[in-house]
Amino acid sequence: MAPRLSTIAQAAGVSEATVSRVLNDVPGVSARTREKVLALVDELGYERPSKLRPKAAGLVGLIVPELDNPVFPALAQIIETELSKSSYTAVLCTQTRGGISEDGYIDMLLERNVAGIVFVSGAHASITASLERYGRLREAGLPIAFINGYQPGIDAPFISCDDVVAAGMAVDHLWTLGHRRIGLAVGQRRYVPVVRKQAGYESAMRANGTGFSAVAESTFTVEGGAAAADELIDQGCTAIICASDLMALGVIQAVRRRGMSVPRDVSVVGYDDSPMMSFTDPPLTTVRQPVIDMALAASRALLDEMHGERTPRAEYLFRPDLIVRGSTGAAPDPDGQQR
Amino acid sequence: MAPRLSTIAQAAGVSEATVSRVLNDVPGVSARTREKVLALVDELGYERPSKLRPKAAGLVGLIVPELDNPVFPALAQIIETELSKSSYTAVLCTQTRGGISEDGYIDMLLERNVAGIVFVSGAHASITASLERYGRLREAGLPIAFINGYQPGIDAPFISCDDVVAAGMAVDHLWTLGHRRIGLAVGQRRYVPVVRKQAGYESAMRANGTGFSAVAESTFTVEGGAAAADELIDQGCTAIICASDLMALGVIQAVRRRGMSVPRDVSVVGYDDSPMMSFTDPPLTTVRQPVIDMALAASRALLDEMHGERTPRAEYLFRPDLIVRGSTGAAPDPDGQQR
Repeated sequence: MAPRLSTIAQAAGVSEATVSRVLNDVPGVSARTREKVLALVDELGYERPSKLRPKAAGLVGLIVPELDNPVFPALAQIIETELSKSSYTAVLCTQTRGGISEDGYIDMLLERNVAGIVFVSGAHASITASLERYGRLREAGLPIAFINGYQPGIDAPFISCDDVVAAGMAVDHLWTLGHRRIGLAVGQRRYVPVVRKQAGYESAMRANGTGFSAVAESTFTVEGGAAAADELIDQGCTAIICASDLMALGVIQAVRRRGMSVPRDVSVVGYDDSPMMSFTDPPLTTVRQPVIDMALAASRALLDEMHGERTPRAEYLFRPDLIVRGSTGAAPDPDGQQR
Repeated sequence: MAPRLSTIAQAAGVSEATVSRVLNDVPGVSARTREKVLALVDELGYERPSKLRPKAAGLVGLIVPELDNPVFPALAQIIETELSKSSYTAVLCTQTRGGISEDGYIDMLLERNVAGIVFVSGAHASITASLERYGRLREAGLPIAFINGYQPGIDAPFISCDDVVAAGMAVDHLWTLGHRRIGLAVGQRRYVPVVRKQAGYESAMRANGTGFSAVAESTFTVEGGAAAADELIDQGCTAIICASDLMALGVIQAVRRRGMSVPRDVSVVGYDDSPMMSFTDPPLTTVRQPVIDMALAASRALLDEMHGERTPRAEYLFRPDLIVRGSTGAAPDPDGQQR
């Protein structure tokens, strides 16, 4: 459908002549007005005149572990949108069980002549993984960028949430509430973010003057959280810090299965602040990753690299925020059952 | 890292000789064992020998409205995985505000010579949208498939959840609980799924013998749900059926803002049964779209088309299920405040 000048002019608060100038790509309209008019054309469901449609630049691989944890689609959407504004198209690669592996995807992306690859919590995040694959990509001159999983041996920009600080924030919050037997539920220890969270947890516990430490290694899933909770509650923990929001939901399930209550008997802290966590029962106290800022930083670093501008080879550490909701409360009375 | 034969053999429950045969692509191993061994190679984080990695077939466009509603990443993940098993690579196209429009994406995908496109709840779902763009794709011989948004004029397979049945299920559930003033909160009426849900709602209400009808048109978001709830509660509704789970979460917020409670004062039914909805407060009663079956059906229809096998030009209607959780309950006492 061709755009109706009057509708767009009214919505944009400009004259029909201005709208016409934008649609015919005639100079003399400010960049801001131009953008506003074109956004309204899209929004109202009209087709843009074809010469005003962005031209394709290149393909970019976007490798994510899976889309079940809502933090990954949140990151993917922002990266995809940001790349598309520079006319790059994102190729989605999700590593589901029984699907293609990271190496399989890398081969495919190379066959497709991608202009770059963003790795989100990929195999690079594993301290046991071979980094050779990334070395090969860099030797071939392919720009790459990484989110969450720093590896000093790779020639690329890294964007991470500060996991050490995150775990420390959670410990201090629970300590202030009177908890002393604070446990940590994490996914597989071979991942850099897990190693860092454990370091942050242990250092914050020591800084608070306790030698207590209880770490349950499990998987980054609801079921993994439940299994870790059973282990930690058996060790007398009254508070559990989780390495993901999904794990925290599993911890809450496990606490209830024992006839106990959150936060009365056990306080629970998640990690990510993925969408929906303010709607859970109870609303989840969690450490928020600055997902938008991190996704934009990774996209922009990769865009710079693809445009031939070398970005610093440092790790950009983003500071998390503690979002206090209803899943944490005062430690149970020492005379009660749970101590 | 090269795979360790012994580790894989043990995990797969086969001999090392068998693992070696698979990795060297020597015949004499059953397809099932081969698949099992290769899945373990991926899972344990080893690299597959390069000749055992799938070869790229073609790019497939995957156009989704956004990834905020968790039902869209759920569909995208299954489609992407299913296509990748046949060596097709999915190009993710999310239509966020200020990003690329559906037409912009179509142009880009054509420039990239995609082998096909899956449209999930795209512009095709709008009854006012021009279908010309799809006609052009078909004239160019490009296979396309659609999820949720049937348009009889397009030469392609359509996969939909049966929205008429879905709305009827929700009405009947609430009617049985004693509700009579049942309202419907929907997104923009220009979308086919909205038109169908309204038809199903109105027909089920009539079948139950009432002339009552209250439909609030809003947007498919938490905020949209809250706005619709205010409108419907003002009309005396004791139960609200929503066109998405996100809208239902907004309805629950709005009910609480009025100092009322779900389900004591107002019962709420969602739509989708997207991930997380069993963890909300209260756990959400909702109509489940069979997301896995629908995503597989769309992927397979498109794969057939891309392999030159014409699929029937019908709409495949999938039957939803009513998942009863905690957000619906008996209608409030007629002498109470809310009637």
